[in-house]
Amino acid sequence: MRIYEVITKKKRGEALTATEIRNVIEGFTHGEIADYHMAALLMAVYFRGMNAEETAALTMAMVESGEYVDLKPLKHTEKTITVDKHSTGGVGDKTTLAVVPIVAACGVPIAKMSGRGLGHTGGTIDKLEAIPGFNTKLSGAEFMGIVKKIGLCVAGQSANLAPADKRLYALRDVTATVDSIPLIAASIMSKKIAAGADAILLDVKTGSGAFMKSLEDARALAQIMVETGNNCGRKTAAIITDMSAPLGSAIGNSLELIEVIQLLKGERISQNLLQLCEELAANMLFLAEKGELKECRVLAKEAITSGGALQKLADMVEAQGGNRSYIESPAQFPQAKTVAEITAPHSGYITETDTEGIGIAAMILGAGRTRPEDEIDYSAGIVLNFGINDYVEKGQVLARFHTNSQPLISEASEKFLQSLTFSNSPAKPLPLIHERIGL
Amino acid sequence: MRIYEVITKKKRGEALTATEIRNVIEGFTHGEIADYHMAALLMAVYFRGMNAEETAALTMAMVESGEYVDLKPLKHTEKTITVDKHSTGGVGDKTTLAVVPIVAACGVPIAKMSGRGLGHTGGTIDKLEAIPGFNTKLSGAEFMGIVKKIGLCVAGQSANLAPADKRLYALRDVTATVDSIPLIAASIMSKKIAAGADAILLDVKTGSGAFMKSLEDARALAQIMVETGNNCGRKTAAIITDMSAPLGSAIGNSLELIEVIQLLKGERISQNLLQLCEELAANMLFLAEKGELKECRVLAKEAITSGGALQKLADMVEAQGGNRSYIESPAQFPQAKTVAEITAPHSGYITETDTEGIGIAAMILGAGRTRPEDEIDYSAGIVLNFGINDYVEKGQVLARFHTNSQPLISEASEKFLQSLTFSNSPAKPLPLIHERIGL
Repeated sequence: MRIYEVITKKKRGEALTATEIRNVIEGFTHGEIADYHMAALLMAVYFRGMNAEETAALTMAMVESGEYVDLKPLKHTEKTITVDKHSTGGVGDKTTLAVVPIVAACGVPIAKMSGRGLGHTGGTIDKLEAIPGFNTKLSGAEFMGIVKKIGLCVAGQSANLAPADKRLYALRDVTATVDSIPLIAASIMSKKIAAGADAILLDVKTGSGAFMKSLEDARALAQIMVETGNNCGRKTAAIITDMSAPLGSAIGNSLELIEVIQLLKGERISQNLLQLCEELAANMLFLAEKGELKECRVLAKEAITSGGALQKLADMVEAQGGNRSYIESPAQFPQAKTVAEITAPHSGYITETDTEGIGIAAMILGAGRTRPEDEIDYSAGIVLNFGINDYVEKGQVLARFHTNSQPLISEASEKFLQSLTFSNSPAKPLPLIHERIGL
Repeated sequence: MRIYEVITKKKRGEALTATEIRNVIEGFTHGEIADYHMAALLMAVYFRGMNAEETAALTMAMVESGEYVDLKPLKHTEKTITVDKHSTGGVGDKTTLAVVPIVAACGVPIAKMSGRGLGHTGGTIDKLEAIPGFNTKLSGAEFMGIVKKIGLCVAGQSANLAPADKRLYALRDVTATVDSIPLIAASIMSKKIAAGADAILLDVKTGSGAFMKSLEDARALAQIMVETGNNCGRKTAAIITDMSAPLGSAIGNSLELIEVIQLLKGERISQNLLQLCEELAANMLFLAEKGELKECRVLAKEAITSGGALQKLADMVEAQGGNRSYIESPAQFPQAKTVAEITAPHSGYITETDTEGIGIAAMILGAGRTRPEDEIDYSAGIVLNFGINDYVEKGQVLARFHTNSQPLISEASEKFLQSLTFSNSPAKPLPLIHERIGL
């Protein structure tokens, strides 16, 4: 195989063979294929795409560039099925924090690796680190030990999972080739497959706060990821969910964690957030063969009402070095110095939000990063005081901004208010769950 | 300007500004823009194209990366117009060797830089070097001195003409981004503009022996080159000519030079070759404002019949260190050791040739290069004994192969015979000159 011929083939729109793809990834990893070759190939893939077989081959080539996590030691019985979850990310998306203790409380072991936030989206690892002492940098033995002991652990991703993906992503990031659906699919799936779970539930977001703004793109990504997972021998399903508005009320690290604690305590929170967490948990339990989907929905609800999920979260916090009393009494989380009320500039129905814009407003307040090396302020963020299609009066409080840097409020407020659409009548509500694929 | 934004813009199909293009070429030349950035941008250009303004801006940015040749000293009067010519290349295309002495014999100074052959196509510089002692590596002063003295000089391209094009071409060559019409146009035109002539005649070939196999592609390339030349302040015109069959009978360096000498001596040669050379010369004279096109055709014919063009060629050979007696008595050119007759495997009309295949057969015999560093055998090549639509009997001699390496004949012969289409009736003849653009 010559890389020139592979580029030419893809440029013409032909499918590459699994051998060609494996050789490209190996050659690139070992420095035999130059960055400029790979950049040309990536741009050709952007324009020509890759079919399901090519995407699976790319995924497996990246998996094979590093280590597999072996989850066999977690199997209590031969029937135990380990399950993982991935969300394509959004604004206020704290579902993992609620879903994994629910599933673990139902007896399905969860050994989850998560990522950090960047840009308008948050990351589970950052949110957990809002708890003083919480350790996300665990050795493989520590990680497995915690799951064995309490059935649940959430850690940062090991550097040696799919290292080729990391190198490839760095090149995509500087050559404007991130937004290719098969490349996104292979990047996500290579890490999920290397992470070792038997089954994978994908939460593919769509709407103004998601990477996939259109339902068509979200569907295409979900379909190729499900096919890829199944082609690589993992039971994979996807749910396409709404990200046209922030999920729940809180955006920001400790603020989101507090909302999750309220949810797991059965306190009154956003019904959308509760419904989505229950649905994701039920689908994970279904993939773990805990019963029919209907039965799994009952199991998920019971794990909340019984307090089992909250206990599981507290157990995990303790096992990972955090103070479990923060889960029991979240009022202990440090508060931001300034809490500013943002009021409605005029009356009307808030029918639509530029959700990415709201995420950026929270980032400006200190809740997120513009570059991977930026520090974040755990207590910063936004708590919304409205839902989509709510009627608000001029001067009514729309949101509370939490920040430790008061001068940032005016820029964040401008961005926030620009992100809201006021109308004279409510809009047709969007479904929370658009489609299921592969279940 | 950030290169990331430029790549993204082109990826989306938007036009780049002249400033963006200039910054990209400067940044690339100075090493501030990495090869991987440029490779991604080139592939995006391959898919999205560039409009006339972008192509002109790229051309001028590459011109400005090096030196201009100043042809003002060649102007006898204020009215003198210097003219250059470029052919996109083909098989048996020896027109430059005939056309430039014709035009120079009509009083238009010709200071021409030419290239070497690669793959199935030959190069003017190689063909001239078949004359013992002929020097194509001239200093700027030597080059200008010869044109001033005898009105004609053909030298190799100076390394400092459009050096950015050289670097860019090297990257295109390894990233499968050579075959982009605007990139081809900018590459050709940057060298032609830097070479200093007031007017430029482009001979854009189309057909099985050309880089542009289809008339549509040839037309698109001709149009963008003519627009680019005019946008850059040069009077530019193009003629789209047929390369569906080799031009004339001879393919190979000294063999082609001998055919040109026969043409300039008024000996009986291929009428197509004669007609095309007269037409190209007439169009160059027209661009130099030597009269109406009809008058220029008469001037071109007279330069041949008077023997003036032959003398001009001999003068140039002498001025560039070659032995002028080779022009007067071409029988002196060294002959290849073996001349093999290739006969028709069956009877029929030869209605079509894979002309690139015939060029490759000549290359196999030693007449061409597979890589730029290969040596060539000046006496090697093919002399055809048929024209398109000729009826041939089985066993009739189709061609004579000249080579110094007899073992190569069987491979070359196989390639040659595979390149011929035999039919029961003649095909509709193709025009020699398809279109004129910009005249």
